[in-house]
Amino acid sequence: MWPLSCVAVCGGTHGNEMSGIYLAKHWLRDPMELQRSSFAVTPFLGNPRAIEKCVRYVGQDLNRTFTTEFLSSTEAEDEPYEVVLAREINQTYGPKGSAQAFDFMFDLHNTTASMGTCLIVDSEESLLPMHIPCPIYLYKLPGEETYSINSVAKAGLALELGPQPQQVVRADLFSQMRDIIACALDFIELFNKGTVFPAFEIEAYKITGRMDYPCYPDGEISAMVHPKLQDKDFLPLNPRDPIFQTFSGEEILYEGNTTIYPAFINEAAYYEKKVAFVKMEKHMFSIPGLQRD
Amino acid sequence: MWPLSCVAVCGGTHGNEMSGIYLAKHWLRDPMELQRSSFAVTPFLGNPRAIEKCVRYVGQDLNRTFTTEFLSSTEAEDEPYEVVLAREINQTYGPKGSAQAFDFMFDLHNTTASMGTCLIVDSEESLLPMHIPCPIYLYKLPGEETYSINSVAKAGLALELGPQPQQVVRADLFSQMRDIIACALDFIELFNKGTVFPAFEIEAYKITGRMDYPCYPDGEISAMVHPKLQDKDFLPLNPRDPIFQTFSGEEILYEGNTTIYPAFINEAAYYEKKVAFVKMEKHMFSIPGLQRD
Repeated sequence: MWPLSCVAVCGGTHGNEMSGIYLAKHWLRDPMELQRSSFAVTPFLGNPRAIEKCVRYVGQDLNRTFTTEFLSSTEAEDEPYEVVLAREINQTYGPKGSAQAFDFMFDLHNTTASMGTCLIVDSEESLLPMHIPCPIYLYKLPGEETYSINSVAKAGLALELGPQPQQVVRADLFSQMRDIIACALDFIELFNKGTVFPAFEIEAYKITGRMDYPCYPDGEISAMVHPKLQDKDFLPLNPRDPIFQTFSGEEILYEGNTTIYPAFINEAAYYEKKVAFVKMEKHMFSIPGLQRD
Repeated sequence: MWPLSCVAVCGGTHGNEMSGIYLAKHWLRDPMELQRSSFAVTPFLGNPRAIEKCVRYVGQDLNRTFTTEFLSSTEAEDEPYEVVLAREINQTYGPKGSAQAFDFMFDLHNTTASMGTCLIVDSEESLLPMHIPCPIYLYKLPGEETYSINSVAKAGLALELGPQPQQVVRADLFSQMRDIIACALDFIELFNKGTVFPAFEIEAYKITGRMDYPCYPDGEISAMVHPKLQDKDFLPLNPRDPIFQTFSGEEILYEGNTTIYPAFINEAAYYEKKVAFVKMEKHMFSIPGLQRD
């Protein structure tokens, strides 16, 4: 792997996730703390119009728009704002899959779920992110195309911190996110300067599917995340454990046959898709050593 | 005071505060648990269009729209949706200040602040709410006209539960809100049936003003609620205690001369007004006894 020369840090891919938005705005005013000797770091705001309105997105979710279909689409009058934006971002930091693309992109997110701090990586084959010491969530389903903003760079990851309400910035999470970026930039500096990172084994969580809310016949959700599941992200959920409580007070149990590890439990942004949590398995991965060519 | 015969319970005055919205929707499907023998209870959704979009409001804050100015305005083509709605709600549950108005209205709210459970009452002269056993926050500034949705009824209160992110329903807060409404309806039933509630002394918090976020010259906020103040609603804040942390890392201290009791600390909905918290004083009030005529 070659040394990295161009790194981007994006805040506000979702316009109501405030840690990354205020961090990126701060770095745009004063980029000093991003400076390293062996590479350049460019902070930017992902979705300026959504940030202005303090909403997740204006027309469609920007972070699902970096597919070949959208990136290669031709301009149309009625296309969503985020499709135009994705093509622009792809021109600036990509093009996706090309030699001119940025070497790495960090994308900063918050969740209302109690997920602590975790890295969201497309798959275990993304070698460099797998070496950063942090809990890891592998988001790509088998055969799925990458669709996230950081997929326009040659490598990248999303940083997910929670719980934090949408539209709110908490000083504690802001500091954590700032510290992790500082640590990750230091890691790239060491890599660029020839540090050898040996092979190792690591447990990581891999998505297997999504759990929908139960609904009334008219499509309205009819239950909430069970109080015993609330705030239990990344902890084991066993067959027959309670997962929902209906508004009338009944319990609904998990009907699967194996233990899973839920994440994004009760995430605000997933209500519109009626998703209550993401189902994950815990796997052991053998990560090869890492050294610059 | 006469017995109460008509009571309303409103959820969704703010369309992204989910405990009250899901409770009211549940009661509209199944009103059984609201039934009492001595009075009728009507659940309703405050701002249906904002609920549909899962936003606080569409045109302007409905819960600031129940003033004489708005309620007596004549229809205009370009008026905000909430002004039309306020006149309709005033017709159904008021008119405000009239003999036909509902006897009591409960209005259900959530906050992203760690305020636990509290009752928001216009002033200590609202006798009936002052007798309900719960921490009390008196919101009306001296000389100010009432402007909240429950002011269209002869008496009322807002129930404020937090912390809960906007657009999220947590089972624990949902149950608490349901229990408090059950308890308050039982209280009215006892009052109607002639129970004597003796006079007592109570400490309550009274608003004195608001604390704005510090800003850059361009108007953007330049600091966050200090980690030592975050989640400390209703606890004493003393002169020279830290209240803000700037994005560059400096501390800003409280410059007042007396101890205050902040509330709505880091409430998501107050960023647009650049309000970081509400300043309150703690006072002892002598509440006269209560008995039906």
